[in-house]
Amino acid sequence: MKVEGKNAVVELFRSNTQIDKILIEKTAQNQLSEIIGLANKKHIKLQFLPKEALDRESTVKNHQGVIAVINGYQYSSIDEILYVAKERNQNPFILLCDGIADPHNLGSLIRTAECAGVHGIIIPKNRACQVNDTVIKVSTGACFNIKIACVTNLNDAIRKLKELGVWVFGLEANGNTIYQTDLTMPMALVVGSEGFGMSNLAKKLCDEILSLPMKGKVNSLNASVAGALAIYEAVRQREI
Amino acid sequence: MKVEGKNAVVELFRSNTQIDKILIEKTAQNQLSEIIGLANKKHIKLQFLPKEALDRESTVKNHQGVIAVINGYQYSSIDEILYVAKERNQNPFILLCDGIADPHNLGSLIRTAECAGVHGIIIPKNRACQVNDTVIKVSTGACFNIKIACVTNLNDAIRKLKELGVWVFGLEANGNTIYQTDLTMPMALVVGSEGFGMSNLAKKLCDEILSLPMKGKVNSLNASVAGALAIYEAVRQREI
Repeated sequence: MKVEGKNAVVELFRSNTQIDKILIEKTAQNQLSEIIGLANKKHIKLQFLPKEALDRESTVKNHQGVIAVINGYQYSSIDEILYVAKERNQNPFILLCDGIADPHNLGSLIRTAECAGVHGIIIPKNRACQVNDTVIKVSTGACFNIKIACVTNLNDAIRKLKELGVWVFGLEANGNTIYQTDLTMPMALVVGSEGFGMSNLAKKLCDEILSLPMKGKVNSLNASVAGALAIYEAVRQREI
Repeated sequence: MKVEGKNAVVELFRSNTQIDKILIEKTAQNQLSEIIGLANKKHIKLQFLPKEALDRESTVKNHQGVIAVINGYQYSSIDEILYVAKERNQNPFILLCDGIADPHNLGSLIRTAECAGVHGIIIPKNRACQVNDTVIKVSTGACFNIKIACVTNLNDAIRKLKELGVWVFGLEANGNTIYQTDLTMPMALVVGSEGFGMSNLAKKLCDEILSLPMKGKVNSLNASVAGALAIYEAVRQREI
């Protein structure tokens, strides 16, 4: 896998993920001295290459002079996510992505969740976007600072969370107004897919459906924006 | 200009923009009967073409079987935006984009603003993304349901709004917490560019700088997400 761009590679370093090597654009060495210093300190192999070589290696086509090569993204377990909440002495605050297909939306949700202090993200193994090179880039490396669990069955994950006393909210049209709902309790938030929303079963399993006020003629928000709004409403309520 | 995809073309019809012609993918006629009906009712020229022809015409490469050709996007004036607020009997609620360069971010902000009932958006003519085919597609046509003014000088626009009694908030790091600020008054919200934030002068002209809580290691939200969070915080406060 490839981690591209300065910000994403800096986050990668913060995360203790094993880095195989780092490709640096020869003419961009000066702007990348921070990364070169970090790599030298950790004895990570550096290759200085012409721009064309990095362009060829780049998946995302926006490498800004640096690409780190890693063996794979290290997923976490649901238990590890719950442990983050325990360590921080906070009520669990978990994001579940039910079939997000667009890597830009998944990357954006990961970035927002990390910024908001969400304890972890659960994504399904099938029929959904995984953490790939584009997701890493769009998340600006945030995926290395937040636990992400990739599960075979998202509905089982919802059942497990409910058993542990986590209240599961689904984000969809025609639910209760999010601004009049208590989001300070142990909670998980399910964001549905771009075109089709949540699966019927996931929706049924949710303890409560929440909605955002819609005041225009366009009848839906982008999935990553809707998710961000719900995440930060919980931040707001937890801050007061 | 081209308006691509079913949702965007439906919004285009709602908006009374003059449509030159509509290209329909021959094999997708059944799924597009609503649009074909609307076109016939308004006596707009329809062309039924093979998929390859639409692929060639498409700018965004995601036409879903339908492309409408329009002469250009019809911008509005600041006065027209203020008139929307007056008509709705609401305190003005305006979004200013200071140098948003990525059409995905501008399109996303337009979609969110329309969904939130923002009265209008002001963008600068230079060094920033205009309403183009990609913006239209990403906004899912929301740009046809909200007034957008394109001005030579964004700072003059800020000065004008201030003279009219509109309180201008800038969205940046190290400002006052947005959740403790009154957003129910006549207000404009300035969102800065992706890489550099607001220009220095725009920042100085703002009445107040607002920030969102940041709880992670990644130190910034995506511009369109940050804008969405601020917009909906105003919606929340105005609803209570």
